[in-house]
Amino acid sequence: MTVNFNGVVRMMGILLIVLACCFLPSLIVAMIYGESESFRSFVLTAVPCILIGAILKKITRPSLADLKARDGYLIAALGWMIASLVGAVPFVISGAIPSYVDAFFETCSGFSTTGSTILADIEPLPRSMLFWRSFTHWIGGMGIIVFIAAVLPSMGIGGQLAASAETPGPTLDKLSSRYSDTAKKLYLLYTFFTLTQTLLLVLGGMSLYDSLLHTFGTVGTGGFSAYNASISHFTNPYIHWVITVFMMLCGINFNLYFLLGKKNGIKSFFRDPELKLYLLIIFGASLLITINLMTTGTYDSLSDCIRDSTFQVTSIITTTGYMTADYDLWPTFSKMLIFMVLLTGACSSSTGGGVKIIRILVSLKMVRRGFSLKLHPNRVVTITVGGKEVPQEVATNIANFVFCYILTAFCGFLLVSFNNLDLVTTVSSVLTCLGNAGPGFGLVGPALNFSILSDFSKLVLSLLMIAGRLELFTFFMLFSPRYWNSNKA
Amino acid sequence: MTVNFNGVVRMMGILLIVLACCFLPSLIVAMIYGESESFRSFVLTAVPCILIGAILKKITRPSLADLKARDGYLIAALGWMIASLVGAVPFVISGAIPSYVDAFFETCSGFSTTGSTILADIEPLPRSMLFWRSFTHWIGGMGIIVFIAAVLPSMGIGGQLAASAETPGPTLDKLSSRYSDTAKKLYLLYTFFTLTQTLLLVLGGMSLYDSLLHTFGTVGTGGFSAYNASISHFTNPYIHWVITVFMMLCGINFNLYFLLGKKNGIKSFFRDPELKLYLLIIFGASLLITINLMTTGTYDSLSDCIRDSTFQVTSIITTTGYMTADYDLWPTFSKMLIFMVLLTGACSSSTGGGVKIIRILVSLKMVRRGFSLKLHPNRVVTITVGGKEVPQEVATNIANFVFCYILTAFCGFLLVSFNNLDLVTTVSSVLTCLGNAGPGFGLVGPALNFSILSDFSKLVLSLLMIAGRLELFTFFMLFSPRYWNSNKA
Repeated sequence: MTVNFNGVVRMMGILLIVLACCFLPSLIVAMIYGESESFRSFVLTAVPCILIGAILKKITRPSLADLKARDGYLIAALGWMIASLVGAVPFVISGAIPSYVDAFFETCSGFSTTGSTILADIEPLPRSMLFWRSFTHWIGGMGIIVFIAAVLPSMGIGGQLAASAETPGPTLDKLSSRYSDTAKKLYLLYTFFTLTQTLLLVLGGMSLYDSLLHTFGTVGTGGFSAYNASISHFTNPYIHWVITVFMMLCGINFNLYFLLGKKNGIKSFFRDPELKLYLLIIFGASLLITINLMTTGTYDSLSDCIRDSTFQVTSIITTTGYMTADYDLWPTFSKMLIFMVLLTGACSSSTGGGVKIIRILVSLKMVRRGFSLKLHPNRVVTITVGGKEVPQEVATNIANFVFCYILTAFCGFLLVSFNNLDLVTTVSSVLTCLGNAGPGFGLVGPALNFSILSDFSKLVLSLLMIAGRLELFTFFMLFSPRYWNSNKA
Repeated sequence: MTVNFNGVVRMMGILLIVLACCFLPSLIVAMIYGESESFRSFVLTAVPCILIGAILKKITRPSLADLKARDGYLIAALGWMIASLVGAVPFVISGAIPSYVDAFFETCSGFSTTGSTILADIEPLPRSMLFWRSFTHWIGGMGIIVFIAAVLPSMGIGGQLAASAETPGPTLDKLSSRYSDTAKKLYLLYTFFTLTQTLLLVLGGMSLYDSLLHTFGTVGTGGFSAYNASISHFTNPYIHWVITVFMMLCGINFNLYFLLGKKNGIKSFFRDPELKLYLLIIFGASLLITINLMTTGTYDSLSDCIRDSTFQVTSIITTTGYMTADYDLWPTFSKMLIFMVLLTGACSSSTGGGVKIIRILVSLKMVRRGFSLKLHPNRVVTITVGGKEVPQEVATNIANFVFCYILTAFCGFLLVSFNNLDLVTTVSSVLTCLGNAGPGFGLVGPALNFSILSDFSKLVLSLLMIAGRLELFTFFMLFSPRYWNSNKA
């Protein structure tokens, strides 16, 4: 069993053609605003994409039926890399982001729905370029995944891995379930969220352009804004609350929404243990931060305080990364809570990143089981989530994942520490990129950006974003000799 | 099955009497240096201890044969707490440390062999008080454990838990093996290390008093010094190297040393996978830090650089906490390596703290297995350490422990963050106390101390030190209702 190069190359060809089509909305924006330089750079990128894509399709056999799950890993990882490499080109050609490394970082950040930026000043960029930048969130958050999920099941991939719950999160394995119409349903839901939020923002007085950009950033849980001040650019509290609610909605397991149409739907929706913990963390952390900010006199107005704390907690736990207040100026207790939700991340099968709530939940239950085993060493203690037993195997896989997450983070810390920036900046830049959140603390805090880092660090962080987005194993496996030569296993 | 209160209370009586006897060496030091105030305060503490101890022995039935392992947890946790509560008294009575909370923190730090101090200026303290302070390391590091280990097996505790390797580390369960002479052997080895190091330090020109104090701090992997400048007070490189070697020796699994007397002893000693990883980390991190410090021009002399980097890496990985150089002034890359070895900690069944190398090793193997399982979902992949299979159960217990460690650390972060100090100080103070290391970063860096923290934070950190020393579960279990009422289980 080796890698199916024919299928992988063919898929990359298809990807390049689809990517070229993705430039279309930005091209239209460039036309509307008369940005000829941007228009030219989109065309100059799209045309070679279509050509190379067509050639790749031409030189490969059309059969994709023999693609296996392991080829899927390669397709996902390569796909994300190629999309970022290609998506960065218009920024460079148009001169919007002159350095290719910077443009690559920005595009990785977009497609991985991270939202970290190297732009110190966002506003002077051409509007079509900002549109493309935010649109990568929309594509990244669900688009590419749904695209792959819609294509792969028809090629016989899926089933086998989708049946195991061990990778909660919107990866290839999970979505490419037995039924390819799941993908279609998710696609429709994503579009429904996009249209509803855009409409609600327009009703709040935002321009259609701004509404679209900030909806892309929200539903993809990305976090790119068209303004240096992020969402605090908009002073209408209504806008803040609309974005808070949609961030929260997009951090929920998308599959849960399909329960709502069924009998007792709302009841079973809210009975989901992951959702319960997710909402508990959001409301608990927001409440604690509100109390902390009010008692320390950081805020005068209670309503402003509640709005900002809820917004920031939701923004960080869903790994969106929008900002209405610079939490890095808050008291340490509030900052610590923000740091903690940065690590937990959103629910599995949402557009959010991070470790994911379900893994945190199982980890907590493992601690509890640890106590039971100490008291009753000979008793069999099982872990249950929502009344259902979690197989030992799944718990072990979650432990493997968490250890891999920690290991990856530490490798990242060491590599980024060559910048010789302070510990808080070093650690938080790695964690925020790996968790696809966006802003960190210190010199990469919410009011600042990643431009101070060296090119080397930017490349490391770009790879961490993709690794985090692909739930680590899918990405790192490609660096294992055993992946390429299964006889070694 | 409920708690055997008779046995526990009787053990506390014995503990109080032993503790009173432990004041004897300090009393002698007070006599030698004519410190009457200190002498008085030791006597005023010891006499009530003997009286209360005698009363507790009197009112309890002599039978200890019905003590169970679960009672052992309570004895260990209560023992550590009581020792710290009582051991703090002479500091307060003599006025050496006027605040009881400060004195409690200092004594917890002593008995748990942490070495964090609230003393901004150590040197003005009476010599007998400094002697007692360092002697708590010696007792804590191995004394109390060996005492309990020597007593408990004769009471029928042990075996059952000692057979499982799931709590690597010098806890009750592990040492109270089937053979109570193991305890005696460990006791002899500990004394041998103590005498040898003292002799070597005296030969290096240190006074007997200083040699004893710094030997207590080394073999207990504690880290209290009699000087504000810690080991950098001594300028003779020989002293630094002697301490480095003994810190390293005391971070090794003590049981391994008994292999040395057997056939092919040295070979099987160095074949131990935990030891190999431990030495690899020490030499690897020291080498990387040396390169980093030399290339950044932090040091002019290569030999000074090698000495300081090896010393600091060894000091922190063994969770001793002595200082010859302020690593908080080093470049970020070097600081990050120090931070990482602070988390790993020393080998199991040594006097060191932290997560322990064996757990790191198994965790790394779990990550590796994660990859294998992704590639071959249906294959049974086992974890082996040193050629022996690690049972699934043991791997799961290690995962439980690591998650419990993370959870405890995060609770600590939140509680200590009420101090409103910077993130680095908050996080590192918790991690260094939980890991029993001593110094942290920022305002609790190696050249500073813990006096800036609030009383509340000092109490939290004191409990974390004990929790860390007792490998978490043993300590936290006592807060579980199920421990006190097993019918609830």
